[in-house]
Amino acid sequence: MNKKKIINDPVYGFITIRSELIFDIIDHPYFQRLRRIKQLGLTDLIYPGAHHTRFHHALGAKHLMGATLENLRNKGVEISDAEFEGAMIAILLHDIGHGPFSHALEFSLLEGVPHEQISRMIISKLNKEFNGQLDLALEIFNGSYPKKFLSELVSSQLDIDRLDYLKRDSFFTGVSEGTIGADRIIKMLDVHEGRLVVEEKGIYSIENFLSARRLMYWQVYLHKTSVSAEKMLIAIIKRARKLAKKEKPLFYTPALGVFLKEQVGIDRFVNEPAILDAFLQLDDYDVWAAIKVWVNHEDPILSKLCRMLLDRELFRITISNEPPSKEEIKADEAKIAEAYQLEAKDVKYYFSHGKLTNSAYMASDKEILILSKSGEVRGVTEAADLPNIKAMSKIVRKYYRCWPKDISL
Amino acid sequence: MNKKKIINDPVYGFITIRSELIFDIIDHPYFQRLRRIKQLGLTDLIYPGAHHTRFHHALGAKHLMGATLENLRNKGVEISDAEFEGAMIAILLHDIGHGPFSHALEFSLLEGVPHEQISRMIISKLNKEFNGQLDLALEIFNGSYPKKFLSELVSSQLDIDRLDYLKRDSFFTGVSEGTIGADRIIKMLDVHEGRLVVEEKGIYSIENFLSARRLMYWQVYLHKTSVSAEKMLIAIIKRARKLAKKEKPLFYTPALGVFLKEQVGIDRFVNEPAILDAFLQLDDYDVWAAIKVWVNHEDPILSKLCRMLLDRELFRITISNEPPSKEEIKADEAKIAEAYQLEAKDVKYYFSHGKLTNSAYMASDKEILILSKSGEVRGVTEAADLPNIKAMSKIVRKYYRCWPKDISL
Amino acid sequence: MNKKKIINDPVYGFITIRSELIFDIIDHPYFQRLRRIKQLGLTDLIYPGAHHTRFHHALGAKHLMGATLENLRNKGVEISDAEFEGAMIAILLHDIGHGPFSHALEFSLLEGVPHEQISRMIISKLNKEFNGQLDLALEIFNGSYPKKFLSELVSSQLDIDRLDYLKRDSFFTGVSEGTIGADRIIKMLDVHEGRLVVEEKGIYSIENFLSARRLMYWQVYLHKTSVSAEKMLIAIIKRARKLAKKEKPLFYTPALGVFLKEQVGIDRFVNEPAILDAFLQLDDYDVWAAIKVWVNHEDPILSKLCRMLLDRELFRITISNEPPSKEEIKADEAKIAEAYQLEAKDVKYYFSHGKLTNSAYMASDKEILILSKSGEVRGVTEAADLPNIKAMSKIVRKYYRCWPKDISL
Amino acid sequence: MNKKKIINDPVYGFITIRSELIFDIIDHPYFQRLRRIKQLGLTDLIYPGAHHTRFHHALGAKHLMGATLENLRNKGVEISDAEFEGAMIAILLHDIGHGPFSHALEFSLLEGVPHEQISRMIISKLNKEFNGQLDLALEIFNGSYPKKFLSELVSSQLDIDRLDYLKRDSFFTGVSEGTIGADRIIKMLDVHEGRLVVEEKGIYSIENFLSARRLMYWQVYLHKTSVSAEKMLIAIIKRARKLAKKEKPLFYTPALGVFLKEQVGIDRFVNEPAILDAFLQLDDYDVWAAIKVWVNHEDPILSKLCRMLLDRELFRITISNEPPSKEEIKADEAKIAEAYQLEAKDVKYYFSHGKLTNSAYMASDKEILILSKSGEVRGVTEAADLPNIKAMSKIVRKYYRCWPKDISL
Repeated sequence: MNKKKIINDPVYGFITIRSELIFDIIDHPYFQRLRRIKQLGLTDLIYPGAHHTRFHHALGAKHLMGATLENLRNKGVEISDAEFEGAMIAILLHDIGHGPFSHALEFSLLEGVPHEQISRMIISKLNKEFNGQLDLALEIFNGSYPKKFLSELVSSQLDIDRLDYLKRDSFFTGVSEGTIGADRIIKMLDVHEGRLVVEEKGIYSIENFLSARRLMYWQVYLHKTSVSAEKMLIAIIKRARKLAKKEKPLFYTPALGVFLKEQVGIDRFVNEPAILDAFLQLDDYDVWAAIKVWVNHEDPILSKLCRMLLDRELFRITISNEPPSKEEIKADEAKIAEAYQLEAKDVKYYFSHGKLTNSAYMASDKEILILSKSGEVRGVTEAADLPNIKAMSKIVRKYYRCWPKDISL
Repeated sequence: MNKKKIINDPVYGFITIRSELIFDIIDHPYFQRLRRIKQLGLTDLIYPGAHHTRFHHALGAKHLMGATLENLRNKGVEISDAEFEGAMIAILLHDIGHGPFSHALEFSLLEGVPHEQISRMIISKLNKEFNGQLDLALEIFNGSYPKKFLSELVSSQLDIDRLDYLKRDSFFTGVSEGTIGADRIIKMLDVHEGRLVVEEKGIYSIENFLSARRLMYWQVYLHKTSVSAEKMLIAIIKRARKLAKKEKPLFYTPALGVFLKEQVGIDRFVNEPAILDAFLQLDDYDVWAAIKVWVNHEDPILSKLCRMLLDRELFRITISNEPPSKEEIKADEAKIAEAYQLEAKDVKYYFSHGKLTNSAYMASDKEILILSKSGEVRGVTEAADLPNIKAMSKIVRKYYRCWPKDISL
Repeated sequence: MNKKKIINDPVYGFITIRSELIFDIIDHPYFQRLRRIKQLGLTDLIYPGAHHTRFHHALGAKHLMGATLENLRNKGVEISDAEFEGAMIAILLHDIGHGPFSHALEFSLLEGVPHEQISRMIISKLNKEFNGQLDLALEIFNGSYPKKFLSELVSSQLDIDRLDYLKRDSFFTGVSEGTIGADRIIKMLDVHEGRLVVEEKGIYSIENFLSARRLMYWQVYLHKTSVSAEKMLIAIIKRARKLAKKEKPLFYTPALGVFLKEQVGIDRFVNEPAILDAFLQLDDYDVWAAIKVWVNHEDPILSKLCRMLLDRELFRITISNEPPSKEEIKADEAKIAEAYQLEAKDVKYYFSHGKLTNSAYMASDKEILILSKSGEVRGVTEAADLPNIKAMSKIVRKYYRCWPKDISL
Repeated sequence: MNKKKIINDPVYGFITIRSELIFDIIDHPYFQRLRRIKQLGLTDLIYPGAHHTRFHHALGAKHLMGATLENLRNKGVEISDAEFEGAMIAILLHDIGHGPFSHALEFSLLEGVPHEQISRMIISKLNKEFNGQLDLALEIFNGSYPKKFLSELVSSQLDIDRLDYLKRDSFFTGVSEGTIGADRIIKMLDVHEGRLVVEEKGIYSIENFLSARRLMYWQVYLHKTSVSAEKMLIAIIKRARKLAKKEKPLFYTPALGVFLKEQVGIDRFVNEPAILDAFLQLDDYDVWAAIKVWVNHEDPILSKLCRMLLDRELFRITISNEPPSKEEIKADEAKIAEAYQLEAKDVKYYFSHGKLTNSAYMASDKEILILSKSGEVRGVTEAADLPNIKAMSKIVRKYYRCWPKDISL
């Protein structure tokens, strides 16, 4: 075999691939497609280093998963070779169902199809191609495998996914204080009665991990300029779909065309193979190429929005702790309609408002478990010596409004 | 002013923008376009972190230029505020003329139009928009400004361009040993009789800088897989242009269409404003979106090449120290023609061969100057205590051949 | 002037010294002495990279102070050149009064003399030597200078001291998740009505800073093995002083001898110049050299403790949330006395127990102030959108007991 | 077992210790002693971060050795568990024979006893204590083990020792451009006919490694201020020995006293156990504590030199490419004698001159071997495509003179 098995990663140095099956999965066009989907969508408009892709994140998560499983084995946790490989594949493919600008387009280009479901469909499809070699990975991904800790490593409040993306996003954005002690956390993980637990002395690392996650939410994922750009993208897609349905001439790649012209909910995804095939051809390039061409479209709304996004003339955005009243919203809409001489139904393309929520930790969800030296297991909110983790599990809600900068509201 | 003036950069921490003029240039659509052009073209196929853009590099170079000029001022070099700003703008815009996959497409999509000339045209165009405020920057860029060291900082064998790109490319590829001591080099720079010089005690940093540059060439810029991918891209563009000229139906964005359908040499760039305008709309997205669609084109050559590049089934490539003989080339071509049942004229799309050259330093070119404590100035090849810099100024030539992996040559 | 003005620092790259006065202060033997005092005392027994010195920390703090003051000037805060230099000197000298293993020896070698008072005496002494050039620095250090924010930068809950030591200690211990966004925090600082404030959008950086500080306390400063080593050192010093007072033959350097043989409280420091002079000759080397020799002392307690510390056979330590009862302590003491055949009065050398306290933030103290966009100033516990900062201001108390490993308690 | 097995290292993150035997060796007082010997002697006077110890270096080298051996095993090189552990121990103990300020004191405090011989004696001594468990390690250390590549990993021109110290010294000094791609080099290592070789594609990493080493020599190890400090230290020791032999009262620790009062060459080391025992008690603390006390010694030469070193009033040093003539030296000596009113025989304490040599690579020594794809093995100077490695194998000689700053020569 003459396969390249060492991949450079500025975050971890080198990522080594030892399994041929994993190598072949990485080589598959479905996985290679992740090279063309940025992990953070439009965030590079704010943090110009943030061009890293879902491909790189998936590889990084696989790397951390390997380190974690080896560490657990060294602690005496029984993990067969098949389970090892299965967990590696499950984390590698956990985000395979993401489309371009995922969070933004799940509810505009698609009709609310969660990416986890698409991931599941794609893993199943790959599993057929690989003659069932992904069976175990699929069980782990689905949470149906008996050894629960393997699924918890793939998806939980302290999963490998989060460890990699926090570290990676912090690295590429340059928000260095968002970094987490992934290495130390991994060394503190153990398994107790089949569940993933953290050794007691690792509790401060968990606290710091949650604090860093909260920081990254406000500083990066919910950065107000990033929200503003995302809302513009959604407005663009909505406008383009409207035009597409009216059969107005519109530039798009064939794959993007499918989702502009049709209503695609989960049912069609499940039942029509052509839909999933089209989705698997879609990436950031389709969306950006279209936006670039639409700048010169005859529809003034589409063209103006595209021009603004392309040239980074982003909406002004305000954030407040209280939601605006209906009257305020109405007044805003009226001003925008007047400023741009718009029909009432078109104001929505230039005005977005809604809620942002951030919770570093969900105490009500499956808790992160702490194992004391005496062998007792408690949720982290109970085990900590301060109520601050409990505090961080409160959901913080903020309310945004955004609109073009040349209008005063 | 409510302008964002601090930009996060994982390489330097923060980049601060103090001048309003510079802020406005960065804000201009011509400069924002660099956000959509990757610094290293196809290199992310080998180093998956290498998605950083020309936008980020230009900002980084500006940052280093600021540090350099301040340091020179502290050493007593006279630099007026206008010169300071001029040099900052000159380095900011030094790469503004790059198109997508620049080095690959200068001789396929374009007809050998060097990016420096396009940069000059764009800076002039911007200068008009900015009412002559870029006059001094343009002089520095052109090398016509009396204080030569300012131009040398923008373009020479030890320019700020190289300092930033080596550091940045090393950072994002993860080839950490390619890093250079940019900070130390900057502190060692001085001006002597109007020329940029390096203090003698900085000579080992220069040696290391040249060695790192040589390493980066072989390890990254001329990495064989990268060369292979680039040759495939060139073959794709050539094939697409052929089809475009035959007026075959072909998907492309309007901007890309201009360069597929027309022969564009330097003359037309100069004389036809529409050409430059089209160029200014072109970026990586146009090229990739087309390739993605061409995968399903009816022309088997175009579709096969695009499929291969998209799925990263890259040409096999061999490198040798001696050029292949004409007979060997002929024999190779015959084998490929037979394997794929090709007409002789079409073999070129599947077979590329040529020369790679690498010289860390050009002793024959304008030398890097070393200033001894006694005030004497010598070229670095003379000043070093070893002949190794002279050795590094030898041009190394290697010869590559590349072709599809399923054919044995 | 042929003075070296650029100092390499792995944390910040380079530290540049521009002021001649500051250069001369750094050059002074009192300041050079800090080269021989480790910032973290015995912590290198746990984190072997933690050999950085108070000298390096003081330089780093000076560096950050410079960046902070420049940033404030750029925001329009008026800071004269004299104030700039004064604040730089104040931070440079803020720890000049630390002796070796400061926190451990303040209450064993000294009789509870706080290092801040000694710093003040030394700065005054230097001020005389420098003919009053440190007047302003002294006022800032003392908090008596009218521009309060300058003093707050030197000493408060968000001072430059903390910014540097958290970053530096995290760097050299390798506890990378303890890192803080010092750069970002500095950019968020401003002055409002003479007080140091943080711009509202920096609040998450403050939150992260406090969380990192809390982490560093448990993970490093109060690391249980570190506490154990410190208690052993204190026992050694106490035993040696006892022997010294009995005029037993004992090896020591003259400077150390002063503090072994005499009772030195704050009064003598103030009134007897010889005491301060002796103190200024004392550093880590005196203490370690003595311990190394005492290994072979005829007193079995001294020699055993020294041997153990030298060879890193540290006391076992247990930490609990509740204080042990008097009975438990008595029982422990009895066991140790028996195990080692000790007189009751000598048990204390092998047994230490007490309280550890950690509060990331003191809400009751002078609060960190947050400046909202509307110009309102509030304490950070009020301004945050979660009660977690308030939670972190709770003082956490833990209770330790430590004793030789070969005894079972 | 309750042993601490994970050690934080800012350079590599974590160092994990899996073998109990290795743990026990690390725990041994002989190894713990390395905590008190700085890797770079007096270099922290120039690079204030350079306080890292031989203890830390030895652990780091062990860590890299583990990674290397695992990588070789993955390539199919047969390495038994005993060999694995043996090589780990050999590298762990390769520097165990270093004393304080090793290179400086080998020829002043000792009479030219090379540290390798002392290492061998100490390993043998430990081997007895460990009942022969270090037999294999000793063979590897001595180069007598049949699998030569194991010894080459411990000591050769591309050994693990150099990989760690270059990386570590670069890290702690902050000379970031001296960093090497240790990870990449390790991945390129292989074994061919029992010899350590580098895969051909790693040749540029080797080139960069040699260039970085050369840089580190001039920038750090032979930094002129560092040379100056070292010569002062040697002068101090020589003067102190002279006084000690004259039985003048002199402060020293017992261990240091042995080497001040006696002539210790290799014979006595071998034949008198008390000498080796005394050596094993010696570290940086003995030397510095003495110097600090000697500041007040009645001998004016000793006291002046100690005061100067302590307060960092270092000798002025000049470096030239040509050796000074005998006449020049005579003239210098005369001036110094006059300036300080010295007897001729005492001038040597204030005046040092000699040669500095630097060769990044020794082509005449055992070459670094490159393995071509076709299976051919050549020395790296032959295999490289440029003569620059050959150039770097030239020994560069420079000549220094140093003397007190207040004298003009």
